[in-house]
Amino acid sequence: MSATAQPERVTAAALIIGDEILSGRTADVNLNAVARFFTGLGIDLCEARFVGDSARDVVEALDALRTRYDYVVTTGGIGPTHDDITADCVAEAFGVPLVEDPEVIAEMTARFNEPPNPARRRMARIPEGGSKIRNALGGPPGFQIGNVFVLAGIPRVMQSMLQDIPARVRKGAVMLSRTVKVEGAGEGLIATPLEAVARAFPDLVMGSYPFQGTKGFGSNLVVRGRDPELLERGVEALLAALSQAGIEDVTRVDE
Amino acid sequence: MSATAQPERVTAAALIIGDEILSGRTADVNLNAVARFFTGLGIDLCEARFVGDSARDVVEALDALRTRYDYVVTTGGIGPTHDDITADCVAEAFGVPLVEDPEVIAEMTARFNEPPNPARRRMARIPEGGSKIRNALGGPPGFQIGNVFVLAGIPRVMQSMLQDIPARVRKGAVMLSRTVKVEGAGEGLIATPLEAVARAFPDLVMGSYPFQGTKGFGSNLVVRGRDPELLERGVEALLAALSQAGIEDVTRVDE
Repeated sequence: MSATAQPERVTAAALIIGDEILSGRTADVNLNAVARFFTGLGIDLCEARFVGDSARDVVEALDALRTRYDYVVTTGGIGPTHDDITADCVAEAFGVPLVEDPEVIAEMTARFNEPPNPARRRMARIPEGGSKIRNALGGPPGFQIGNVFVLAGIPRVMQSMLQDIPARVRKGAVMLSRTVKVEGAGEGLIATPLEAVARAFPDLVMGSYPFQGTKGFGSNLVVRGRDPELLERGVEALLAALSQAGIEDVTRVDE
Repeated sequence: MSATAQPERVTAAALIIGDEILSGRTADVNLNAVARFFTGLGIDLCEARFVGDSARDVVEALDALRTRYDYVVTTGGIGPTHDDITADCVAEAFGVPLVEDPEVIAEMTARFNEPPNPARRRMARIPEGGSKIRNALGGPPGFQIGNVFVLAGIPRVMQSMLQDIPARVRKGAVMLSRTVKVEGAGEGLIATPLEAVARAFPDLVMGSYPFQGTKGFGSNLVVRGRDPELLERGVEALLAALSQAGIEDVTRVDE
């Protein structure tokens, strides 16, 4: 039992939609941005799923994630073309119709000096009961319905839309992270002292991320936790255990 | 109904394991490598899931994916440290024990000039009935059991292990891809002609990938299919439809 009360955990998942990522044509960069965003809010991103532009796959993944986690962010599939099916899928998952938002239509009319064509009108549709997520770059908005945030796939637009989310979510205690860098010793030597310390500190998370450096194999040992004092005790215990195991080339590289 | 018989579709999924990716500490690069690899073999990567170092999450995701798709590749979690739980999870999912492989132990003994310590011995464990996947870089192997390929998380090692997979899988007809680049016209203008052509060619997949270029918004229109003649007819029809819609700045940029 921990001496300090553990704050309530807030969880999230990401659903990244688009054939182009699964075909390898495009390398995703949105997952990392979403991960860093949630970590900064003290929210644990617990899972991410990538699916193609298939309505069945999108609805099924969305239903699995939105019932399991506190929040879900989706990226991709909200443009004007026929393969942009995310809004339809989200409405289907929530069992509500899509409704054209008159403000978005008015903004489009002002931007193009004429009423939007049918393709562009698709981007003004929000599931009934949803609210718009601001696109600070000036284009059509994303939207929120329930615990689901539906964002664009273009990274710059997606990142702009993320900025409209913090005011809408419950934050957790931020997960703090400390890194101990070991050089010239592979994980095979580090594993035993690391595991002993990890077992002694069940309220901390300890991971090992190996690399091949100029001195051969090494590893970044990352200690994470929400209580700064406990975290410091864990790092001290890890440094002592590494020293006792004869591992000498060890530096703290706290971010 | 298509005039040409559609070849049987071969499907795959990726399961990418590791807290460090979901926390945002590390940006994944393995998904794109796995996607390109399968695409090159004519195998459709249909889904990817990212989960943390949690046994329950790994087993559940693995069971969902291996029963739904022809093949599953996992990356990450096969090192010697306590947070490397992938082999245990795969064995649990298949309901078999992990067995130490004497060849791997012998290789480790030769490499270190002494028998491996308990942490390193963990990397010699293969689920009963599995076969080793070669690590051409000289370290411990991955393994295959059933339709699941278990690879390392370090990108260079993962990519080396991928090279041992082609001989083990059924290949599909390679999905061919042609790109038509439109500049100076956003998706709002492209959507209607694109959708008309997509509807006329149900055996081709047509997607639109917008970008912001020097001439404002544009989009790469990607046409994909397994029949080269049908693909060419689809591209020609798309070029004609764009021209008829008054979209002029159009170039084929076939890869």
